[in-house]
Amino acid sequence: MDIFSESLAFHRKLKGKLDVRSKSHIESRHDLSLLYTPGVAESCRVIHRDPDEARNLTIKSDTVAVITDGSAVLGLGNIGPLAALPVMEGKCVLFKEYAGLNAFPICLDTQNTVEIINAVRNLAPVFAGINLEDISAPRCFEIEAGLQDIGIPVFHDDQHGTAIVLLAGLLNAARLAGKELSELRVVINGSGAAGTAIAELLLGVGHDPAVAHSVAEVLMCDTKGIISRNRTDIESNPAKMKLARITNRHGRDGKLSDAIEGADVFIGVSVEGALTPAMVRKMKPDPIIFALANPVPEILPEEAYDAGALVVGTGRSDFPNQINNVLAFPGIFRGAINVRAPRITASMKIAAARALADHVGKPDREHIIPSVLDKTAGEAVATAVAQAFKPEE
Amino acid sequence: MDIFSESLAFHRKLKGKLDVRSKSHIESRHDLSLLYTPGVAESCRVIHRDPDEARNLTIKSDTVAVITDGSAVLGLGNIGPLAALPVMEGKCVLFKEYAGLNAFPICLDTQNTVEIINAVRNLAPVFAGINLEDISAPRCFEIEAGLQDIGIPVFHDDQHGTAIVLLAGLLNAARLAGKELSELRVVINGSGAAGTAIAELLLGVGHDPAVAHSVAEVLMCDTKGIISRNRTDIESNPAKMKLARITNRHGRDGKLSDAIEGADVFIGVSVEGALTPAMVRKMKPDPIIFALANPVPEILPEEAYDAGALVVGTGRSDFPNQINNVLAFPGIFRGAINVRAPRITASMKIAAARALADHVGKPDREHIIPSVLDKTAGEAVATAVAQAFKPEE
Repeated sequence: MDIFSESLAFHRKLKGKLDVRSKSHIESRHDLSLLYTPGVAESCRVIHRDPDEARNLTIKSDTVAVITDGSAVLGLGNIGPLAALPVMEGKCVLFKEYAGLNAFPICLDTQNTVEIINAVRNLAPVFAGINLEDISAPRCFEIEAGLQDIGIPVFHDDQHGTAIVLLAGLLNAARLAGKELSELRVVINGSGAAGTAIAELLLGVGHDPAVAHSVAEVLMCDTKGIISRNRTDIESNPAKMKLARITNRHGRDGKLSDAIEGADVFIGVSVEGALTPAMVRKMKPDPIIFALANPVPEILPEEAYDAGALVVGTGRSDFPNQINNVLAFPGIFRGAINVRAPRITASMKIAAARALADHVGKPDREHIIPSVLDKTAGEAVATAVAQAFKPEE
Repeated sequence: MDIFSESLAFHRKLKGKLDVRSKSHIESRHDLSLLYTPGVAESCRVIHRDPDEARNLTIKSDTVAVITDGSAVLGLGNIGPLAALPVMEGKCVLFKEYAGLNAFPICLDTQNTVEIINAVRNLAPVFAGINLEDISAPRCFEIEAGLQDIGIPVFHDDQHGTAIVLLAGLLNAARLAGKELSELRVVINGSGAAGTAIAELLLGVGHDPAVAHSVAEVLMCDTKGIISRNRTDIESNPAKMKLARITNRHGRDGKLSDAIEGADVFIGVSVEGALTPAMVRKMKPDPIIFALANPVPEILPEEAYDAGALVVGTGRSDFPNQINNVLAFPGIFRGAINVRAPRITASMKIAAARALADHVGKPDREHIIPSVLDKTAGEAVATAVAQAFKPEE
């Protein structure tokens, strides 16, 4: 039985992967009076006087909403909110298993940006954090930006989770290559949610005193080639216009095969086969390759190594160096919630990436990032994120 | 320590009464592949082809949303969504403990009727049913009515839960009084959510072939007196105008003390002390009294018995005959979800009330309704509700 048939049978048996349990049971009238009426009224009155008390008296202490509109689910595309539910439940399982957080899936029956923002605002009271998931670009940018003032962290995992784990891997890969972050020329192929967040994090990293320098250059490519200020076809796309402003400092134009020339790092968040061995050979010595397309990467690790790659990371569990968000989001939320941070700042993301990189101990070409089965990585991330939170930010 | 202090300490210790658990754990890469990617994609594809499969593969099989806007919480009034959360969590505990259903609290940060309707519609994909809770009248009527076409049961418990348990008690009380339902003159004091639903259920009961007759007459009183077609002050209130049309068939006017004269049944969903012993003495022989105001009823049972009451029910756990919604809503949702009913019909509500009444076995003056600790009552209700569902309705 292949993994798909086995997983379907497993889902059919479970009829839902989550179980909402009561921490306490009802055996007597006294139990009812404590858990429910009339006793519960006292907790209501206390929270009504001091809203912060909800963090001490309710599931707002440790519960995350995993929210999607089903518009960009795995590699399946826009399958809608109902069909997205198995993924969102799986994500909630990961929150529990990796960070001990309660998480509940919310699959919104609308793909209207304003309606989604309103819905999430209306849902916020119950939750300690909002994990946005599988929402297509560029809507995801607007939605996340529209929710940064709601007083609890709102984090689009497809953007920042991927970017943080990628940065962790890059920190260790650069170390193995004997290169400073500040000298790296990076090409990102794919300008969707993940590609955009990776670019912003790599460029923003230099603003953090703990890291000191951003990478030297980021070139982003979409299917038409390098994103630059000279491209007239992107004028109606504010997200790509922004990328054209913040990346490509020398105003280069051309195809991916032009961009890759002399690059130190290739990051693919695109499609199967996008990177050829010939392109790898055009990169600087000891090139670092992240080929994250799923299920088939931009280049297979074997081909990349044969063409001279120093380190290859993919999204796959059956190759070394798996760039998997599960290394980031549970610990990030755990850390942010522990200090009641109202949002996840750039410093907190960078701290998470550094903690993940450091957690490896002694990295080698096949171990630039912790194993997805290492649940202690989440604790290291949580601690670093909590320490990086500054109440005034 | 009083019950309020004890309950607050209990809430502070638990930090949330609900625990969202995974039914399965992650120990290996294979576990990750089954629960999450890549295996989970197969369940997504199956649901995308056949949305009904969500009931077989996800928490939509058995999960209820408990939704409030915090506008009418217990006796505390409009304390808002956050302060309402301890009550909603308690409700979710009851769903689990009494019917084995998953339930999750949603406290909406809006009290705009249209926004609430949109929010619930947008939330519907994940859930098998929607329990509306503690939403003030008359907004609750409009919200519930605006959601009857969403394909899953939407049930405002403060209305129908109370009405169903009340009807169950009334069926047994009438039996003890040796009176037919069809000869009862009923006075309801209080025209909010519960009073309105009670009136509708008592008047609608006759449309159900299993019951055969409605009560003879319902008079409703608000703080101004009997609701009648002659009242000009209610012209701007559609909910009360409707009550004026469907109740008070003889067009009576006057105060509660006029309405009560010659009544068989008093139902109070109003305030402490609204019914005096002198009023009870003006009722027909063997009067039946439901004094549901909380925490202090319209009349204390002892006073009512002294004035000649045959049966007295209250909302209190420390008196006999407690009219408590927990006897109804868990079984009603369990039954409706088991047969995938798209809504809760009047027949299903009446079936629930009859099942509850029958579950008592041999009723007496202090036992017209099952104990709130009798968790088997829910199963009887679930079975009756499932049987009463007709797919064409």
